[in-house]
Amino acid sequence: MSVTTSATQSEQPGRIMAGETAEQPAVLRRVLDRGAPRIREVADRIANSKPRFVLLTARGTSDNAALYAKYLIEVRLGLPCGLASMSTTTAYGAKPDLTDVLVVTVSQSGGSPDLVASTRAAHEAGAITLAVTNNPDSPLAAVSEAHIDILAGPEKAPATKTYTASLLALYLLVEGLIHGDGAPATALPDLAERLLARQPEIRQLASRYRFAERMVITSRGYGYPTAKEAALKLMETSYIPALAYSGADLLHGPLAMVDNISPVIAVVPDGKGGEALQPVLDRLRGRGADLAVVGPKAQVEQASAGFVMPTDGVPEELQPILEVIPFQLLAYEMAIARGQDPDAPRALAKVTETH
Amino acid sequence: MSVTTSATQSEQPGRIMAGETAEQPAVLRRVLDRGAPRIREVADRIANSKPRFVLLTARGTSDNAALYAKYLIEVRLGLPCGLASMSTTTAYGAKPDLTDVLVVTVSQSGGSPDLVASTRAAHEAGAITLAVTNNPDSPLAAVSEAHIDILAGPEKAPATKTYTASLLALYLLVEGLIHGDGAPATALPDLAERLLARQPEIRQLASRYRFAERMVITSRGYGYPTAKEAALKLMETSYIPALAYSGADLLHGPLAMVDNISPVIAVVPDGKGGEALQPVLDRLRGRGADLAVVGPKAQVEQASAGFVMPTDGVPEELQPILEVIPFQLLAYEMAIARGQDPDAPRALAKVTETH
Repeated sequence: MSVTTSATQSEQPGRIMAGETAEQPAVLRRVLDRGAPRIREVADRIANSKPRFVLLTARGTSDNAALYAKYLIEVRLGLPCGLASMSTTTAYGAKPDLTDVLVVTVSQSGGSPDLVASTRAAHEAGAITLAVTNNPDSPLAAVSEAHIDILAGPEKAPATKTYTASLLALYLLVEGLIHGDGAPATALPDLAERLLARQPEIRQLASRYRFAERMVITSRGYGYPTAKEAALKLMETSYIPALAYSGADLLHGPLAMVDNISPVIAVVPDGKGGEALQPVLDRLRGRGADLAVVGPKAQVEQASAGFVMPTDGVPEELQPILEVIPFQLLAYEMAIARGQDPDAPRALAKVTETH
Repeated sequence: MSVTTSATQSEQPGRIMAGETAEQPAVLRRVLDRGAPRIREVADRIANSKPRFVLLTARGTSDNAALYAKYLIEVRLGLPCGLASMSTTTAYGAKPDLTDVLVVTVSQSGGSPDLVASTRAAHEAGAITLAVTNNPDSPLAAVSEAHIDILAGPEKAPATKTYTASLLALYLLVEGLIHGDGAPATALPDLAERLLARQPEIRQLASRYRFAERMVITSRGYGYPTAKEAALKLMETSYIPALAYSGADLLHGPLAMVDNISPVIAVVPDGKGGEALQPVLDRLRGRGADLAVVGPKAQVEQASAGFVMPTDGVPEELQPILEVIPFQLLAYEMAIARGQDPDAPRALAKVTETH
């Protein structure tokens, strides 16, 4: 929260990213303590208007948070849900009938003009609009009927704490909509703290990939947004081409690209997503792929390398909030090992001015 | 149509893929002549049940065809639309209420068990179900209320003609739903023929990328599914890590990865998608990126290299059926140049048995 130095002034490479990553336990606590009551109010208002479909709008890291929400909404809330193709509105002027549709826009800054424009258009088309941002004073919050503040504090480096804070806020929103109490989430801050303490293990994993020319990251179900966010983080910080595939899509072609020069990291959720991923893991092992696993101990032991996630009874739908942390640390360590400064990616703009 | 040799028996590398690619003008003609009347009947039946929301389900190349349909449905039909996350049904047993929802499943083979299972579940949840396949006798066609046959004939190599045939069938479906006559599509077979005749130009472009270690392909709007399909085709055939981004997403992080060692190909539609892509092209040029353009002449001339697409008044929503052809040829030529056999990708299964 006290970080005020701009990314370009970083004296010690990665200092800002490391600091923001380390804030996550505190941010998660804040969302649970200060954010949850307000999120419940928003959920009650939305439940009253009885949406029948949900559309999620976001870009970049927030798009991965939106994808996480899509799984929650389909599985737990039981509403059909889609990710919006923004250009249909902003470039083509599409005017779909959005009666009974809840449009959720996720944006760290709340400042991208195209998100503001598409949210405004959604409202005019009859949608219920909700913004999930890290800035209650943002233009996006202003044009939305409801707003959830993810309370992550200023973020200067590539998104870390705003990602996990968004996930938790979206989880609590869906909990509110199904009248759950969100109790399992209270374990998250301490678990996040324990993961962050294991940075030396990640440093060792990073050395494995230091000279990799590309990486494939795969998962299924609730783990898939983590695979996408992990790939984005690796690309943003260490510039390694990291390709994320759902396990099923990987079998539909790109598997041809996986061999002993393309290391694979699988995010294996402890639950149904992990079970659905088993045939993909078997196939990868059968091809002799260099496979690392972020997941339960038994899964890591069957792979060439990995990072053991604590199970501790965390339900599968909450695991993404923890699973991304080893990848944030990995992106940081790989950037440092490859001589990059993760605080100052070559092209990062925190508010992206796409129209 | 007469290709019966299995991919593994190919004596001349790429012979099957080259043959299937070359069939496209004939396949497009067949869809227009024999397919269109039946598609119109299906469209009329669907219009009568007045869907309010559309969910598209597909994997691999068909997923890119589904994304094309998503743009058509949002822009031309004016219905909100999402791509289904299949594992929510098949792994998590989600039971969303799909009353008033049209579920369109796109699958070349119609044989993937997970697509059959999710279509059956959609029907039980109240959806109107439509399958778009290359096999009217497939299990997927059998479990769907309506079926559209894309009439592409047997396909053994990585998907080419089934992709363009799916796109045309989906275009005609949406035309039927909005009571259009689909007349502009009649120009496609001849235009496809002219593009295929320009293979020598593509051979030259391929030599440019022969030693590339990765590629970025970008577009916006109707061109975005082409960028995704181009990346998939390059990965399947020449194993080059090709990353596809919408122009807006590219600016949200992965742009850091683009520099003089990461060539970029931009698909620039002649229309609003191309206009919306201009700031991204300017930014790429500003960074000194190695940029090639597949698009109108003026756009290609501003880039380092490219392939000029005929304009000829083809409306933007039909351009994807043509724009992918240079990429199919490029994938073929690059695979040959890199010593691969595009007919026998290392891991291609034409029916992918994911559950």
